[in-house]
Amino acid sequence: MIYPVILCGGAGTRLWPVSRQGYPKQFARISGQKSLFQVCLMRLRGRGFAPPLILTHKDFRFLAREQVAEAGAAPARVLLEPCRRDTGPAALVAALDLAARGMGDHLMILAPSDHVIRDAPAFRAAITGAAEAARQGRFVCFGVPPDHPETGYGYLELPTPFDAGAPPHVRNVVRFIEKPGPARAGRICADGRHLWNAGLFLCRVDDLIAAFARLAPRMTIPCRAAMATAHTDLGFLRIGAEAYRRAPAGSIDRVVMEKAGNLSVMPLRCGWSDMGGWETVRQEMGPDAAGMAQAGNVMAMGCRETLLRAEQDGPLLVGIGLEGLAVVAMRDAVLVADRGHLQQVRQAVAALKQDNAPEAETLPRRHRPWGWYETLAEGPRFQVKKIVVPPGRRLSLQSHVHRAEHWIVVAGVARVSLDGRQRLVSENQSVYIPPGARHRLENPGKVDLSLIEVQTGAYLGEDDIVRYQDAYGRVCVQEGAGDEGRAPVPELAERS
Amino acid sequence: MIYPVILCGGAGTRLWPVSRQGYPKQFARISGQKSLFQVCLMRLRGRGFAPPLILTHKDFRFLAREQVAEAGAAPARVLLEPCRRDTGPAALVAALDLAARGMGDHLMILAPSDHVIRDAPAFRAAITGAAEAARQGRFVCFGVPPDHPETGYGYLELPTPFDAGAPPHVRNVVRFIEKPGPARAGRICADGRHLWNAGLFLCRVDDLIAAFARLAPRMTIPCRAAMATAHTDLGFLRIGAEAYRRAPAGSIDRVVMEKAGNLSVMPLRCGWSDMGGWETVRQEMGPDAAGMAQAGNVMAMGCRETLLRAEQDGPLLVGIGLEGLAVVAMRDAVLVADRGHLQQVRQAVAALKQDNAPEAETLPRRHRPWGWYETLAEGPRFQVKKIVVPPGRRLSLQSHVHRAEHWIVVAGVARVSLDGRQRLVSENQSVYIPPGARHRLENPGKVDLSLIEVQTGAYLGEDDIVRYQDAYGRVCVQEGAGDEGRAPVPELAERS
Repeated sequence: MIYPVILCGGAGTRLWPVSRQGYPKQFARISGQKSLFQVCLMRLRGRGFAPPLILTHKDFRFLAREQVAEAGAAPARVLLEPCRRDTGPAALVAALDLAARGMGDHLMILAPSDHVIRDAPAFRAAITGAAEAARQGRFVCFGVPPDHPETGYGYLELPTPFDAGAPPHVRNVVRFIEKPGPARAGRICADGRHLWNAGLFLCRVDDLIAAFARLAPRMTIPCRAAMATAHTDLGFLRIGAEAYRRAPAGSIDRVVMEKAGNLSVMPLRCGWSDMGGWETVRQEMGPDAAGMAQAGNVMAMGCRETLLRAEQDGPLLVGIGLEGLAVVAMRDAVLVADRGHLQQVRQAVAALKQDNAPEAETLPRRHRPWGWYETLAEGPRFQVKKIVVPPGRRLSLQSHVHRAEHWIVVAGVARVSLDGRQRLVSENQSVYIPPGARHRLENPGKVDLSLIEVQTGAYLGEDDIVRYQDAYGRVCVQEGAGDEGRAPVPELAERS
Repeated sequence: MIYPVILCGGAGTRLWPVSRQGYPKQFARISGQKSLFQVCLMRLRGRGFAPPLILTHKDFRFLAREQVAEAGAAPARVLLEPCRRDTGPAALVAALDLAARGMGDHLMILAPSDHVIRDAPAFRAAITGAAEAARQGRFVCFGVPPDHPETGYGYLELPTPFDAGAPPHVRNVVRFIEKPGPARAGRICADGRHLWNAGLFLCRVDDLIAAFARLAPRMTIPCRAAMATAHTDLGFLRIGAEAYRRAPAGSIDRVVMEKAGNLSVMPLRCGWSDMGGWETVRQEMGPDAAGMAQAGNVMAMGCRETLLRAEQDGPLLVGIGLEGLAVVAMRDAVLVADRGHLQQVRQAVAALKQDNAPEAETLPRRHRPWGWYETLAEGPRFQVKKIVVPPGRRLSLQSHVHRAEHWIVVAGVARVSLDGRQRLVSENQSVYIPPGARHRLENPGKVDLSLIEVQTGAYLGEDDIVRYQDAYGRVCVQEGAGDEGRAPVPELAERS
């Protein structure tokens, strides 16, 4: 069996404003109805593949689980990283988890969740076709024949030129080359002996653990300790935070692939793209003869070589006489960039973050373990939110010091607890929650509950909340402990 | 006395998305806190100026009156055009109205309301300085020394070159030249004998009426009939619709200025701009050394010669590596245009209109005689609006067949009538209006009333409304006339 290890803990900003730290690109619906993560899940199942192991950052735990369920994927084991340490430690803890469960002798395929692969059967065939080599102790990378001298990827050097006519087969790698400069990229792209590293990695679980122990003992020790102190929480496996934080950050490319002597490569010809920036997205969208790629509520007049995206719920986008731009319009943020300057998107987001602009990191829709909310309007002493709670979810039992809340149910049925009394509230009914009242909202039904919440009061910050009970392990006051009893439970204390 | 006749009935789209047919640029706050119309009002008052006569389209009647009041301008007489016939008929009906009120022997200054003039005292001095010539029967235009060969303006030809050093004085005009082609514009711009026509026009009221009678009898007859059938409605003077519709459309430039033999010009050196497109706005905003003009929530990295405007309540706008663009971001629509293609904005808006895109003609904020509303969210079977009612205003007494409404007051105090009973509803209180209930909302207080309305029901169109009484002359059912009694009162029937 091949165990897919899906990495979805990254928080890249090169696809800002769609990708934000709080909701990064792997979870966004950048092309089509499913997220890149969901498509990745669907691609790595079927004959020969075990249910996936998912490795993500703790902040994305409910998001990942929700998207797994929505995609109809097999129930996945989800490991939570307390902090980001790049792909090296992530791959190692995944291998350690598999080994601890008796799968040390099996294969694992390490897969980023934010790539696009057009031909999933060809992709699976490449992996299964490389399995024998991995079983024999090889570390197998997957190499994409380059079509331009990209400086954003690593390259895998072959001993002799790649033969596009030959049936795909595993070959030894002479060396791994980190992202080259433009001159070198031009040279090696043209010589036929170099393939792009697609970021996939196939090997025996125990072989990977042994390679880390040999090549990166300083990484191995804290990662082993982190798994020894891991614990289950609401069905997730939380990696031990204290130990994991001590692990040095490092990519699996640098830590293992560059140093291991047993590197092989399987050619990958399946329409691969790393969706690493808006230019890649434009290519992936299939531009027309004039180089135009358009999505959403867009009108273009006399434009060429330009990406125009109006995201869902965003403004209408009109482009006139444009050439060589990338424009992405969302409800709260619009990016207009020259295609030759897209590497500056990251810097722009960093600068916005510096300015405390909320658009740098969060989307208008805020995901919570119980569903999501979106602020519709804000003003002096009031705020209007739309709140959606999927079936079976419940918010915490809570109260607010400063604000009153009016809830109007616009779809589904709510069960509302208010100062100890419960009632069902259905479409077109409303409830008033006065300041100080202990209340709880849940969806006991079979369809999504949507409600409009109008808050009024002098202070409307998210932190005016006292929680008494919570289904998702968030900080609660210790009942009976008096006013000073708001002791957070360590590790379980999450604001999200 | 000089009577300002302020024209504010136009609905230009060259400044889309800020300027829309339903809320055109003269009423928009394009620079600063006041609209162009309000600034125009303030500019044309003081010593020697009578209270203004405002000529606008009937759709803008409440908007114009509200902005007059907000600006603290003198109470104005407001004439309403039932349809647009360009500046010729508009100038003539204004003159006829002044003459009918005994002001035939006075002067009138015809002024567009959508221009920017930086130096208001110099502007007034130019007008009063030209008064003597007008009193003696001259038609006085105002001419701006050109600084580039603009093809979008008309030109006034002088007999000898303009002397910038001489004190401003009225000179005879050799001829009026309609918008020239680029070659001719280049020639005449350089010869020092041509000034831009600023669209202002000073003359004796009776002289203008006589000129129309002589030069445009086919325009004069229906305009006289339209004024003979004009009637007062809620303090506005509605020009007779049937007759006015018969008047041929035509600009005062073509109808009178090109043909009248008594044309003079007063040089105008007061920082004039017609705000005729985004390029003019960029110039007016005072671009920095790199040619950048920015307004609102904007971040620019490595941009040059570009206009970046994030309008109020709109999205954050980030520009990277841009050159020579105009970008205007609003909540519901974003324009990204090459500065060399801005003449296509009009066509783009026409194409949007063809597609029935609401963004072509209306803003998210919908103005009504009683105040305004904005849709915050829409979904299946529900809609959320913010409603603001200024002090003393009231909505109609009405009912809905399909929808229920929840009102939550978030600021101010509402007087709500519901099935014959009245109550006051203040901040943080709510009211439920069931389908079929006769209800009315008004603001009896001294500050704006703001409320959030949540509508639920199977049909939520604006046309699910039965009006029983209305303070603004909108169609009401004839009480006691049975189901077929929804007879609109002709002329008074307005949807807005």
